[in-house]
Amino acid sequence: MTRLLTPDELEAHLREMGATRYHRLHPFHRMLHGGTCSKGQVQAWALNRYYYQAMIPIKDATLIARCPDRELRRAWRQRLEDHDGSPGGEGGIERWLRLTEGLGLDREDVVSTRLLLPGTRYAVEAYVHFVRDRSLLEAVASALTELFSPQIISERLAGMLANYDYVTPETMAYFQKRPPQAQRDADFVLDYVKTHARTPEQQQAVIGALSFKLDVLWSMLDALHHAYVSPGLIPPGAFVPAPGDG
Amino acid sequence: MTRLLTPDELEAHLREMGATRYHRLHPFHRMLHGGTCSKGQVQAWALNRYYYQAMIPIKDATLIARCPDRELRRAWRQRLEDHDGSPGGEGGIERWLRLTEGLGLDREDVVSTRLLLPGTRYAVEAYVHFVRDRSLLEAVASALTELFSPQIISERLAGMLANYDYVTPETMAYFQKRPPQAQRDADFVLDYVKTHARTPEQQQAVIGALSFKLDVLWSMLDALHHAYVSPGLIPPGAFVPAPGDG
Repeated sequence: MTRLLTPDELEAHLREMGATRYHRLHPFHRMLHGGTCSKGQVQAWALNRYYYQAMIPIKDATLIARCPDRELRRAWRQRLEDHDGSPGGEGGIERWLRLTEGLGLDREDVVSTRLLLPGTRYAVEAYVHFVRDRSLLEAVASALTELFSPQIISERLAGMLANYDYVTPETMAYFQKRPPQAQRDADFVLDYVKTHARTPEQQQAVIGALSFKLDVLWSMLDALHHAYVSPGLIPPGAFVPAPGDG
Repeated sequence: MTRLLTPDELEAHLREMGATRYHRLHPFHRMLHGGTCSKGQVQAWALNRYYYQAMIPIKDATLIARCPDRELRRAWRQRLEDHDGSPGGEGGIERWLRLTEGLGLDREDVVSTRLLLPGTRYAVEAYVHFVRDRSLLEAVASALTELFSPQIISERLAGMLANYDYVTPETMAYFQKRPPQAQRDADFVLDYVKTHARTPEQQQAVIGALSFKLDVLWSMLDALHHAYVSPGLIPPGAFVPAPGDG
């Protein structure tokens, strides 16, 4: 049987998982940030990632809907606001659409998700189902990847602005707004799991939830890489870059 | 086959249902507002109704979690805030606990719901399940009872303050805050169903959803009446008023 970790040992273990398995390390992200993606590959990434963005409020409301703890519900509600926006105020999903529109994609093509890779769809849905079906502790812990996101976002912002002349600060607004939100959310979740995972079984459940979520993010990039990089086998019905953008 | 109603005919039909079937007409509410409840009966009502209040954010997050329409999600999110409150700010659930504490009930007895009538529990859960399982239009329409709530709340506030010396404006804070929220929500839902119920089948689904919800509210009072008024048969394990309050 696994021994009980101290809260700081648990944190160190979680951070080590991020350092070795976060999707920042995926070849597709290296290409994206390094400037070697074609415009069509950048479009495919933004179009597919839109579905993840669009489903995040569904995922978060799913967590709130099963949460008997009012304090946790209140803290989690902030995420709905960050992504959906407030009446009259833009949220993360709308900012993501500014990116896809800035990349020349048709808004309805993106919002309808009709050009999505099946692999993207299944991975995102697996995340929503995990949050719906697993323990509340695991549902919360599956958000732990935000611990690692401020770094990837700053790399992405700098790399994409430097390397693609069709990417502007205006279209990258999402990435300018997101890091402080992600940092606040990550601090909350890390504190929550360190406080609430009090048995070896609960700690393993937290580790398993982060492992699951790291797989979700990684497999979304695997699907992109397979379709748009190597072997470049685009599934029937999925987004096809325009000839000049390929 | 039922014919298509105009939106105004649909509204008139819904309002007529409220005028004849809303729980304001239940004998228990007449007692409560009219001043003929014992303190024990008022306590039993507040303790049981707490569960409804506490489950409302779960119900509303359940709706948001299945809603692909960002605008509807944003509008509905306001309900979470009204009931759960904001960090540092009191919400409807906390205000309801001020009532139960003002009535002399132990907070933990109320929050744990361990003294709840089974009939209350089943009715409230039926509401949450309805919102989870039926069409989104029906889920939205099941909130239509708010159309009728400003009137019942003002009657309750005036009647209870006038008739029970242990009820104070401070403990009735919930009812002072709620009417403008309910009015705003009711206007939104009425407009939504008038706009979105475009076929006879959809209009019947809306009518059915309101009918269901009227039954939920009525049956909660039936359970109270049976247990605490006539025949006064309190189920095993449920709240028993103190001898002097019976």
